[in-house]
Amino acid sequence: MARIEETPWLDAREQRAWRGYRRLRLLVDTRIARDLGLDSGLSDPDYDVLSELSEAEGHRRRLGELAERMLWSQSRMSHHVKRMQQRGLVRRAECAGDGRGAEIVLTETGLRTIEEAAPRHVASVRRNLIDLLTDEQIAMLEEIADTVVRRIDEPR
Amino acid sequence: MARIEETPWLDAREQRAWRGYRRLRLLVDTRIARDLGLDSGLSDPDYDVLSELSEAEGHRRRLGELAERMLWSQSRMSHHVKRMQQRGLVRRAECAGDGRGAEIVLTETGLRTIEEAAPRHVASVRRNLIDLLTDEQIAMLEEIADTVVRRIDEPR
Repeated sequence: MARIEETPWLDAREQRAWRGYRRLRLLVDTRIARDLGLDSGLSDPDYDVLSELSEAEGHRRRLGELAERMLWSQSRMSHHVKRMQQRGLVRRAECAGDGRGAEIVLTETGLRTIEEAAPRHVASVRRNLIDLLTDEQIAMLEEIADTVVRRIDEPR
Repeated sequence: MARIEETPWLDAREQRAWRGYRRLRLLVDTRIARDLGLDSGLSDPDYDVLSELSEAEGHRRRLGELAERMLWSQSRMSHHVKRMQQRGLVRRAECAGDGRGAEIVLTETGLRTIEEAAPRHVASVRRNLIDLLTDEQIAMLEEIADTVVRRIDEPR
């Protein structure tokens, strides 16, 4: 545990950046999630799972791998996948014997669903984020994200 | 409805920025929410509500105002506030007659809770975002957020 007594409060410009990030995230994610629901009847995690599977070799991934990539617990992912299974978007292939747990496989319906959803989703991503930024800002957004993702696990 | 057939796919650098943003958001928000839960037993929306109230005049806001500021529906906010009420963090003051609905008021317990949670939350925000960035990146993050928040509702 860090000695929290010594944590300095955010100064004005850090405060503006942090509040700005929170506002950006809230607005952008709410809009994109709403569009996704209206356009395709999918939730954000539905889209993420379908997208992960459609890009994976053989359109399949281990449940644990999916959970890890989305930073979800296995049990949360398991519940979510069960609901997607009921809608026919994915199926579960038990891999008896190798002990590494179930594989989740994209169905024909799932593939058609993500293929139909993708163009509208891209339009929404453009409308609510990408097309609002200049080329320089797009490059800076990538740089900021890279920096955070690389440094977040570094020992301080 | 835009003519989605004409929406261009994201090019490589837009794709990197979008995926970077998603990864950033997932990592940063998951870490900060986890810290908040471990350190203070609060969820992210709990913290937001307490923080909104502690900064408001008289430590109170209309339910609808709270909902609007967090981009939540009134009914979702109403359910959430009910659970916070059961934990003694807020109370509901009915404003009979003026027709503008209930006011949500921060309790003593709520105030103490946010005051105790804040230093650790700031430490977490530093550890998981702010202190990972250079001054220039902090300025750019603010600029990007401002641009998006300003332009997201502009007619195209």
